[in-house]
Amino acid sequence: MSGWSRKDLTGLDGLSAAEILFLLDSAKAFKGVGERSLKKVPALRGKTLVNFFVEPSTRTRTSFEVAAMRLSADVVNISATASSLQKGETLKDTALNLQALRADMIVLRHSSPGSSHFLARRLDASIINAGDGAHEHPTQGLLDIFTIREKLGRIEGVEVAIVGDILFSRVARSNIFGLRKLGAKVTLVGPPTLVPKSLEQLGVRVTHSIDEVLASADVLNLLRIQHERQRQEFFPGLGEYVSLFGLTKSRAARLKPTCLVMHPGPVNRGVEIDSEVADGPQSVILEQVTNGIAVRMAVLYACAGGSSIPA
Amino acid sequence: MSGWSRKDLTGLDGLSAAEILFLLDSAKAFKGVGERSLKKVPALRGKTLVNFFVEPSTRTRTSFEVAAMRLSADVVNISATASSLQKGETLKDTALNLQALRADMIVLRHSSPGSSHFLARRLDASIINAGDGAHEHPTQGLLDIFTIREKLGRIEGVEVAIVGDILFSRVARSNIFGLRKLGAKVTLVGPPTLVPKSLEQLGVRVTHSIDEVLASADVLNLLRIQHERQRQEFFPGLGEYVSLFGLTKSRAARLKPTCLVMHPGPVNRGVEIDSEVADGPQSVILEQVTNGIAVRMAVLYACAGGSSIPA
Amino acid sequence: MSGWSRKDLTGLDGLSAAEILFLLDSAKAFKGVGERSLKKVPALRGKTLVNFFVEPSTRTRTSFEVAAMRLSADVVNISATASSLQKGETLKDTALNLQALRADMIVLRHSSPGSSHFLARRLDASIINAGDGAHEHPTQGLLDIFTIREKLGRIEGVEVAIVGDILFSRVARSNIFGLRKLGAKVTLVGPPTLVPKSLEQLGVRVTHSIDEVLASADVLNLLRIQHERQRQEFFPGLGEYVSLFGLTKSRAARLKPTCLVMHPGPVNRGVEIDSEVADGPQSVILEQVTNGIAVRMAVLYACAGGSSIPA
Repeated sequence: MSGWSRKDLTGLDGLSAAEILFLLDSAKAFKGVGERSLKKVPALRGKTLVNFFVEPSTRTRTSFEVAAMRLSADVVNISATASSLQKGETLKDTALNLQALRADMIVLRHSSPGSSHFLARRLDASIINAGDGAHEHPTQGLLDIFTIREKLGRIEGVEVAIVGDILFSRVARSNIFGLRKLGAKVTLVGPPTLVPKSLEQLGVRVTHSIDEVLASADVLNLLRIQHERQRQEFFPGLGEYVSLFGLTKSRAARLKPTCLVMHPGPVNRGVEIDSEVADGPQSVILEQVTNGIAVRMAVLYACAGGSSIPA
Repeated sequence: MSGWSRKDLTGLDGLSAAEILFLLDSAKAFKGVGERSLKKVPALRGKTLVNFFVEPSTRTRTSFEVAAMRLSADVVNISATASSLQKGETLKDTALNLQALRADMIVLRHSSPGSSHFLARRLDASIINAGDGAHEHPTQGLLDIFTIREKLGRIEGVEVAIVGDILFSRVARSNIFGLRKLGAKVTLVGPPTLVPKSLEQLGVRVTHSIDEVLASADVLNLLRIQHERQRQEFFPGLGEYVSLFGLTKSRAARLKPTCLVMHPGPVNRGVEIDSEVADGPQSVILEQVTNGIAVRMAVLYACAGGSSIPA
Repeated sequence: MSGWSRKDLTGLDGLSAAEILFLLDSAKAFKGVGERSLKKVPALRGKTLVNFFVEPSTRTRTSFEVAAMRLSADVVNISATASSLQKGETLKDTALNLQALRADMIVLRHSSPGSSHFLARRLDASIINAGDGAHEHPTQGLLDIFTIREKLGRIEGVEVAIVGDILFSRVARSNIFGLRKLGAKVTLVGPPTLVPKSLEQLGVRVTHSIDEVLASADVLNLLRIQHERQRQEFFPGLGEYVSLFGLTKSRAARLKPTCLVMHPGPVNRGVEIDSEVADGPQSVILEQVTNGIAVRMAVLYACAGGSSIPA
């Protein structure tokens, strides 16, 4: 069965439910590889992957690097400060050069929304979006959805509350696109400056009260608060944020026992979430990290042309 | 047939025509590897290559890294800012330490002319010069010559014009040494401050007018302008440089249709070359990048003792 | 024969003589691998090692990287400045994330004494201490001891003088613990501010005169002087240090011809040691570097569960 014929993964917005499910099913198969003693399959042997990070992100870079190594690909890391971008070269020229090196796949992290789309249209190499500004972070969205599906057995009808800095969050956007496509009910929670009512046009519900969703949510996905936002008008004081939107112990006690507590990391303990709750039985935060490898293996494998799910 | 018995590649100056041709022929054989789906041969399996870059250069480092991976070597990257050179260690001590780690090959980028020669004489490891100050950049010279030979079928008698900042250019020097050895006719073009008449003692012609070479050149190799030179007396304003030496659209129209347009990158679009011309049919700029991998594979293979051309 | 059942190597302090000897014997077997043309064994194929360096150290990182590659492990490098520690994440959270990536082994360099112990107790992954503040640097201790044993044929009864900045030296501490356990006689040499009498409680002798140990020492291990200490009260002027504690040519002439001269590097030529003496016949400084690979291969192999010495 063939479920994927795309060269790139630039976002979840344009994917069909069948394509998302294909990646999730592939990831399930690949997850087993990470549990083995010899965590390597020869699927991408002789392929070259370039991790091209124009914005730093050790976690995402490392996750893609490990995923590629498990598929036996060769990995070259290029970070922005070291790259020739400093010499005034355009993104397009840099990318054409990477392709001229016969890179088969380019994993791109970049501050400009649409940057991976821009490259995908111009290059023969596969482009995997590892975060483009406030636009999308599709592999993060996929790993969140994978984790929900693995734990709850379905996505259809699941009530997912995403809490925090939604307006500027590529993580939120990729989650919304993917979850909606698979039939989840998504509610966005946060102050009006960060979660304006206008976001409802994405097919989600908006509320400014976390307490309203605690009893009914099947999943609570707490986004990381960017401290630098505090200086701006968007953001109340940190103490005020905790009291209004933090998952404190008392709020956690009101969750359904089956409700999953998620966070894309790194966690600000005591801000978005109480430290004990982050380590508690409902938290799947570290499983998200583990699932990130499997999801990224699936994406790399699919974009490299592996159209059937590996046995 | 054995065509190479050197441990190191420090420059093209001391090589015989036969040695250069051996590397070019080997590169041709290796180029095929980069076109395959499985781009890997076991030639250097179990060998350790250290990319030791005391000056940053993402492109050259990446090209050597990919070349080494395709030969199945293990690659360790060391950059200057991270290295123990910061602690006041001498280049020689650092290199002896790399050798003590049983590095088989050290690729060295360093700001001091002669640095790779210095190490080559003192170490058992193979030293590959990846640029030493304003002295030589032999693999860049080889990849330029490889590209000319591939496209035009010969080097003997070919008219090559090298345009720009020649005085400080290791790329120009390596090109001149290699091209001359193989019988090309080389003309250097640029302002008198950057291309003094005294360079004619290298066996080349010097002119201060690009318009003089346009009609006859088989190859135009446009070197990158270093913006930092502008502050010095060497360099007219950028606008003046473009009007006097830039390959504008109107100048490009006067080239022979078969004339190759080359640039070692990264290109300053609109300075050394018009943006459309850089992307036009006569430009082989990206092919130079691709050929860089093949040439570096050939150099690594030869210096590691692979004296016959791989089948 | 099984000689090792630990998951981690956090220090030499807690090891038995049998465990240390097991690692030394394994290192001897692995040393042969580095002398071969194909320097690779499949022992850790499919295992993932993370080099997690929160303090920079190119030498130690490179040594672990080469050791891991020779064992066919996959290596991911994470340095502090690039890591998410910058975003305020705790060491524990970062490490839990590395483990969630299914890293089998984490090599940790960190400025806090006890940091690797802290992680070893909390993680399933193997933790290898690559230097934790002024506490221990066990693989450096092991490679020093390995080198002594290889050259002199024994450790029991060997007279080892360690000279310099002992008070703040993790290298000295790991040497002391390991050497004492195997029956060496250790003397510490340096100014009272850096080598207080109280160190004798570690089972060693303390002297403030290097001249006192020259005639009897079987090994002189000269520690690196940290220039930044000069600003503090601990340290006389550099000239004064050389005259009181430096291994000058005249002092070297009074050593036994069989006495080994060691230094963990990088050497301050003309400070801890005269430049000619550092390159002289009694110096084993570069052999220490080579042995570092073998010792680290042994440690990685043992902690990964390879409990019998490889054939």
